[in-house]
Amino acid sequence: MLGTFAETCDNVTYSRSKIGIYYRESSPATVTGENLAYFDGWKAYEENPFHPIDRPDGVIQMGLAENQLCGDLMRKWVLEHQEASICTEEGVNKFSDIAIFQDYHGLPEFRQAVAKFMEKTRNNKFKFDPDQIVMSGGATGAHETVSFCLANPGDGFLVPTPYYPGLDRDLRWRTGVNLLPVTCHSSNGFKNTVAALEAAYENAHEANILVKGLLITNPSNPLSTVLDRDCLKSLINFTNDKGIHLIADEIYAATTLGQSEFISVAEMIEEIPECNRDLIHIVYSLSKDMGLPGLRVGIIYSYNNQVVNIARKMSSFGLVSSQTQHLIANMLSDEDFVDQFLSERKLRLAARHAELRTGLDGLGIGWLKAGAGFFIWMDLRNLLKTATFDSETELWRVIIQKVKLNVSPGGSCHCHEPGWFRVCFANMDHQTMETALERIKIFTSQLEEESLNRTKPMAKKKKCWQSSLRLSFKDTRRFEDGFFSPQSPVSPSPLLRAHT
Amino acid sequence: MLGTFAETCDNVTYSRSKIGIYYRESSPATVTGENLAYFDGWKAYEENPFHPIDRPDGVIQMGLAENQLCGDLMRKWVLEHQEASICTEEGVNKFSDIAIFQDYHGLPEFRQAVAKFMEKTRNNKFKFDPDQIVMSGGATGAHETVSFCLANPGDGFLVPTPYYPGLDRDLRWRTGVNLLPVTCHSSNGFKNTVAALEAAYENAHEANILVKGLLITNPSNPLSTVLDRDCLKSLINFTNDKGIHLIADEIYAATTLGQSEFISVAEMIEEIPECNRDLIHIVYSLSKDMGLPGLRVGIIYSYNNQVVNIARKMSSFGLVSSQTQHLIANMLSDEDFVDQFLSERKLRLAARHAELRTGLDGLGIGWLKAGAGFFIWMDLRNLLKTATFDSETELWRVIIQKVKLNVSPGGSCHCHEPGWFRVCFANMDHQTMETALERIKIFTSQLEEESLNRTKPMAKKKKCWQSSLRLSFKDTRRFEDGFFSPQSPVSPSPLLRAHT
Repeated sequence: MLGTFAETCDNVTYSRSKIGIYYRESSPATVTGENLAYFDGWKAYEENPFHPIDRPDGVIQMGLAENQLCGDLMRKWVLEHQEASICTEEGVNKFSDIAIFQDYHGLPEFRQAVAKFMEKTRNNKFKFDPDQIVMSGGATGAHETVSFCLANPGDGFLVPTPYYPGLDRDLRWRTGVNLLPVTCHSSNGFKNTVAALEAAYENAHEANILVKGLLITNPSNPLSTVLDRDCLKSLINFTNDKGIHLIADEIYAATTLGQSEFISVAEMIEEIPECNRDLIHIVYSLSKDMGLPGLRVGIIYSYNNQVVNIARKMSSFGLVSSQTQHLIANMLSDEDFVDQFLSERKLRLAARHAELRTGLDGLGIGWLKAGAGFFIWMDLRNLLKTATFDSETELWRVIIQKVKLNVSPGGSCHCHEPGWFRVCFANMDHQTMETALERIKIFTSQLEEESLNRTKPMAKKKKCWQSSLRLSFKDTRRFEDGFFSPQSPVSPSPLLRAHT
Repeated sequence: MLGTFAETCDNVTYSRSKIGIYYRESSPATVTGENLAYFDGWKAYEENPFHPIDRPDGVIQMGLAENQLCGDLMRKWVLEHQEASICTEEGVNKFSDIAIFQDYHGLPEFRQAVAKFMEKTRNNKFKFDPDQIVMSGGATGAHETVSFCLANPGDGFLVPTPYYPGLDRDLRWRTGVNLLPVTCHSSNGFKNTVAALEAAYENAHEANILVKGLLITNPSNPLSTVLDRDCLKSLINFTNDKGIHLIADEIYAATTLGQSEFISVAEMIEEIPECNRDLIHIVYSLSKDMGLPGLRVGIIYSYNNQVVNIARKMSSFGLVSSQTQHLIANMLSDEDFVDQFLSERKLRLAARHAELRTGLDGLGIGWLKAGAGFFIWMDLRNLLKTATFDSETELWRVIIQKVKLNVSPGGSCHCHEPGWFRVCFANMDHQTMETALERIKIFTSQLEEESLNRTKPMAKKKKCWQSSLRLSFKDTRRFEDGFFSPQSPVSPSPLLRAHT
C-alpha cells in the first residue's frame, strides 16, 4: 500500500499511523541526514552552549558555517539609511506598497541589486542579467527548486565528495532524485577529476539511473577549496559532452583568502564559446557572503529561460519576504558600502583564519590547504584507532563530549576517507576561538602525555598538501578517559536522545 | 523515457529540450492554472492598470482578494514601535541576532504571538499551543507542505467546489496528488452536504484513488460563506468516520461581516470529544487577516505531532524571514493594537461591502448572501447566451476588455454552474469602487437599452438567497459591440499572449 514515491525512491519511508493513514516521512538516516553526526553535534551544542561567563564548560559551536564577524558594518549602514526600512519615519511611506507586494518576479530593484552584488563577488569580470534571477527560500529552497526543474524521481545528480550533508535533504527528500557520489581523494587534495566523474557516470548507467547533472559547490563546503581554471573548464566540458546540466553552488563566492581567486562558472563559460549555456545554473544566497542566513535570500541564476520560467513559478512556495527584499535592494544598491563591506570582511576573515591555522600548526595538527571558506578541513586521521568511520565517530564523540567542540566529522559529509573534520571559525568572537584552541591544546597534551607514558612510537605522515601532524596514538582507552574535566561526571551522550 | 512522476500524475507533462534533456514542466492548463481566466484577468490588469488620473480607462483590479483598507493603522503602529524593527536606533541592537537566526522552529515569541492572534481571530473561545505552529512560505507553502506530509503521489483530497484556483498549483503541482471536486450547487447556497461528500468519495474509490483527506476553505474563497455549526460538525464526523484528514484553510478567519460568526474547526472539535485530533490540521496566514501578503507568513497548525515534526523539517524550504518574524512577533504581541486593529478593520470592511452590495442591488444584479470575505459571489447567469462555460468566458472577456473590470469567472474556481463571478472589493479605495460601479451601471444600461430596442421580455429569476436580477439578455452581438469606449480601438486580447 506504499505510494509510488516510496517505490521509486528508496530514500523515503512510510509508517502506518494508529489511524490507518500513511504518512510520508523522511528516513532520517538516508534523507534528511538529521541523525548524522553533523546534526547531532548541533543538538549537543544547543543543549549546552558555551558562554564565557555563564557556561564556560559549554560546547563551542564550530559546526556552523557562518560569518558573524561583520554585523557591526551592517548595523551601522541600516542606521545611516533609515529609508531602507519600511518601519521608519523615512521609509514608512512605502510600508503598504511593500507589505502587499507578492509578485514572484520579485521587486525589480531587488533583482538588479542582487545581480550587481553577484558581479562584485565575482570580481566584476562579467555581467549578470537581473531577468535570469529567480528568488527562493534560501539556498535550501533554491537547490530543491533546481532539482524539481531538472530531474524526475529516480534520476540522479553527480556530486563530488565530500559535500555538505544538507544536500541530501535539499535535493532528494521531496523530489525523489538520487545523489551519485563522485569519490575524491586526499592524495591529490580532493580534486575533481574527469576520471572520477566518468567512473561515477558509468556506475549510474549500470544501475539504470539517468544522470541529469553534476552539482559542484565552489568554493567547496566542507573543503574550502576553490576550483582552478583548468578543473572548472574540464567540468564544463564533461557536462556539455554528456548533455547533462552543471549546477554550481557558489554561495561561498566571497570567502576567498589572501590572493586566492574564485572563478565562477559564469566567468568560465565566457571563455568557452561553444558551451551550451542552457545547461548552466548557479545557486546563490546572501547567507554566507552577506552573513544574513535568517533573511532567507536564496537565488537561482539560470542561463536557461525554460528553467527560469518554471523556477519562478515554483518560487511561490518560498518567496523572499518583501520587507527583506526592500532592505536588501537598498543595501546592495549602495555600491560604496558593498565595496567597503566586502573588503573589510575579507580582512577580518583572513585574520580569523590565520588565528586558527596558526593555532593548529602550533599543535602539529594537519589541515587541507585551501583558498576560501569559513572553515578548515582538519586532518585527524592519525588519531583514529582504525581507519574506519566507526573510529571517526568515536573520536568525534570525544571531541564533542569532552573537548566540548562541535566540529563536523567528514563521514557526515560523505567523505571517502575517515579522519577528517570540518572546523568553522567565523561564527565566534576572538575570545571563544582562543578558548577553543586552548581546549585542543589540553586535549593534545593529554594524548601526548598518555602516549609518552606508554612509550609508543609516533607514526608521522606528512603530505605535500598538509602541514605536520605530531599526534598519532592508538589507545582505545583514551576516549573513555575524562581528560578534559575529570572531576565532572560526563553527561549522557546527546547522541542517544530521541530525534525530535 | 518519461519519469515516474509523469506516469503517476497525469497533471505534470514533460517536454524534450533541444539538448536532449527532459525538463519537468507544468502543464498550465491542468496544474498551475496560469492560463485560466483567473490569471488572464490579472495579466490584463497588469498591462493596463486603472489610475484615476494617469489611466482612467485602465482595468480595475477586482480579482485580488486583499484588504488594503487598513494600511494606515499598521503604518502608525510601526512608527510608534521602533523597537519592532531591527533597522532603527531602538531595535538595531538585535540586528545581528535576528539576521543569523534560522531555526526552523521560528522565534519563540513569533509562535506565541501568532497563536494568540489566531485565538483572537477566533473569538478567544479556546487556546492554540505555540508548539503546534509550523511556519511556511505563505499559505501557498503551507498547503503544499501539508499535502507532502499527508499524501503520496496519486492519492487524493476531496475539495468542495467552487474553490480557489491556486489550490491546483499549491497542492498538486510538485506533490502529484489529486484534487477530487465535491460538487456544490446554488440551489442550496453552495452548501457542503454529506451526500455530495459521499458521492465524491465513492467516485474516487471507483477510480482507485486513495482519499487522504478533505480540504475546506472556511470562510470560503470564492463564496465568502462561513460554515455553520451543524455543517462543520458533519464534516468533522464524515472525515473521522472515514479515517481521513480534515484540512481547514482558515486564512479568511477575520473577515466576517456584521453579526456573522466564524466557527473554527479548532472550536468545533472541543465540542466533539470523540474526535480524533490527529486528523485535524489548519492552514493559516497573515496575508488576508493582517493584509500582509508580501511578508509571506504562512502557518500550519496541526494537532498531529508527527505532522508537526515533519512539516517543521520541510519548512526549511520556505522559512519566514527572521526580520519579518521579529516585526510580526512585536506587532501581534501588542494586544491592545490587535484588538483595535481587528475592530476597526471589521468596520471598514463592512462599509466597503455595503457600498458594493448596495450598488449591485441598485442595478438589480444578484449575488450570494454570505457572511465574510473580501469579495462578493456575483450572479450573472441570466446574462449568459447559453448556460455553458464558453458563454461565461465570452461574458468575462467583455467585462475585462470593455467594462475593464478584472473579476474572476466561476469556471476558473471549478464552479459547477456557469455564470458566477467573484468580485473583490477591499483592495481599492472608495473612488475606484465608485468608478467600478459606474462602469457596471453604464454596461447594464447599455444592455437594457439594447434589450428594449429589441422588445424582448426579461426573464427574471429570484431565489431566496439572492437579490433581484433585472438583466436577462440573449443577444450574441452585444458582446462584440464596443459599448464602453466606442471611439477607442479595442486592444488585442491579452488572452492571446504567450504564457510567460
